[in-house]
Amino acid sequence: MAISEFGLIQRYFGARGTRRADVSVGIGDDGAVLRVPEGQDLVVTTDTLVRDVHFPRSTPAHALGHKSLAVNLSDLAAMGAEPSWATLALTLPKVDEDWLKAFSEGFFSLASDFNVDLVGGDIARGPLSITAQLHGFVPRGGGMRRSGARPGDRLYVTGTLGDAAIGLELATNRTQRGSTMERAYLLSRLHTPLPRVSEGLALRDFARAAIDLSDGLAADVAHLCRASGAGASIWVDKLPLSDAFRALTDTTERYRMALGGGDDYELCLAIPAENQSAVDELARSLDCSLTQVGIVERNKKLRFLHDDGSEYKLQKSGYQHFRRKGER
Amino acid sequence: MAISEFGLIQRYFGARGTRRADVSVGIGDDGAVLRVPEGQDLVVTTDTLVRDVHFPRSTPAHALGHKSLAVNLSDLAAMGAEPSWATLALTLPKVDEDWLKAFSEGFFSLASDFNVDLVGGDIARGPLSITAQLHGFVPRGGGMRRSGARPGDRLYVTGTLGDAAIGLELATNRTQRGSTMERAYLLSRLHTPLPRVSEGLALRDFARAAIDLSDGLAADVAHLCRASGAGASIWVDKLPLSDAFRALTDTTERYRMALGGGDDYELCLAIPAENQSAVDELARSLDCSLTQVGIVERNKKLRFLHDDGSEYKLQKSGYQHFRRKGER
Repeated sequence: MAISEFGLIQRYFGARGTRRADVSVGIGDDGAVLRVPEGQDLVVTTDTLVRDVHFPRSTPAHALGHKSLAVNLSDLAAMGAEPSWATLALTLPKVDEDWLKAFSEGFFSLASDFNVDLVGGDIARGPLSITAQLHGFVPRGGGMRRSGARPGDRLYVTGTLGDAAIGLELATNRTQRGSTMERAYLLSRLHTPLPRVSEGLALRDFARAAIDLSDGLAADVAHLCRASGAGASIWVDKLPLSDAFRALTDTTERYRMALGGGDDYELCLAIPAENQSAVDELARSLDCSLTQVGIVERNKKLRFLHDDGSEYKLQKSGYQHFRRKGER
Repeated sequence: MAISEFGLIQRYFGARGTRRADVSVGIGDDGAVLRVPEGQDLVVTTDTLVRDVHFPRSTPAHALGHKSLAVNLSDLAAMGAEPSWATLALTLPKVDEDWLKAFSEGFFSLASDFNVDLVGGDIARGPLSITAQLHGFVPRGGGMRRSGARPGDRLYVTGTLGDAAIGLELATNRTQRGSTMERAYLLSRLHTPLPRVSEGLALRDFARAAIDLSDGLAADVAHLCRASGAGASIWVDKLPLSDAFRALTDTTERYRMALGGGDDYELCLAIPAENQSAVDELARSLDCSLTQVGIVERNKKLRFLHDDGSEYKLQKSGYQHFRRKGER
């Protein structure tokens, strides 16, 4: 292997340097040396993206750079944490300059938006796989957990649901429906999700629990309920759906995709009743919608209800990750 | 995929819980919540092991669990940092209970030795690959860097060199030499390296720079010299070699393997002359040998010298990682 390939890697990742004052040593030593602010706890999360498992082969490199960071930002958002530093472990079948350029641009563009410095990493040759790890801060004793929800808490979600699931069908040519604009929107929701970091920060003092939606609302609310020792009713006719999603789904698949589709990277939050009016007020200042979709119940079951009170029976989603978040 | 497979993962990784008081939230939420001690900086490092690149297919699962943590502990050792928390991103072709049991035992046995808690991770299906990330602490402004070496500093290495390179030849059946005991020793040096954490902690206030030896002494001293804007003379007849290494190598390959062989995970340190006697004194209390192997030079070249002053010409090592540490 020519040394110039390492030069390329250095060019696309190492040479950017660091901008944050809390980075004493960044890329280029055996480890990074970092300073956590006084009175803050450190939050750490990691996520791996493997080709053909977490993203289709057709995913553009730029999108992959974005998404590898976005999925971790989404985890920090769910903790109500402020992002700070990332590390990146890349396994690549070969060193392809165009690919590296596009990937790094996608990664650093999002990193810059959230004031994240890349402080370390590792490159290996092998089947394409990306593991990003992200650090952030919460005030000591603050932030959100999955485990705090109590019966009576209102369940809210940010943004809209199911878009990425339709995006995946488009990306893998399982469907060809929709207008150019609808398709572009749904693909962007799959490839370049916008993590709800500022929403997590804005809501962390009002919510009793939160989780990010990576496996689908049904599965992720189940995780939140299990961690909290509770159940929930989800109001399926209240689920926030985009116009593009509505245009490309019929009523039989709509509920299934919105409840079972993964990769939304929205937040689901449990808001105690006494904070509801404050949250509804706050929602007007957010960049995305915030919608109540149900309520936490004492009964440890997860039920899906129509507006008329009849129950919707969710069929097992066809799309299942091998990976399920938070299970180890 | 049956839910029980996630149950297995939970059993082998999640169920162990955490023992450290500085872990507020461990495995099972969107992120871990951790507390860095007052007056300490955070040190972060990450390393990926890919099958057929970083380890041969024959590597036992127990050894792989050990090694995936050991290579990161070695990076912290080179920073003079005290280890604290790990995360683990595992990509597995299938869920194999025997493999997971052995891997996790190897991982947690070493973690326990160094008081490291596993605080998060991710499991994905795909070609076998392991990315571990490790956190540790150094006193604010303390610890070691690659960049501090100055002309006249003494270059020391811990332990012995080249054992893992011979171990790799044994593991891949490229050689069958040696007694049963010699082979077992050399394979253990490849599969289950003992990271020099306590040595790094003991020496950090005496050394001006340090690096861990993963790519071979020649390549890693070159990294240290480049970071420090210096060169070095390496005394090839002073290299510390194990009896087993000597028994399995002839004089022509000995220098090449000791200088060029990777995966030693020993430390190389630059000790200023005024600390030399203190370090020689301290060396007696260490668990491993500490040997001066050269000196840092003003001339930015790396030279290999025999005791008689003649130069040894190092042939390019046949074994080269795609990955080179610290280059991004």
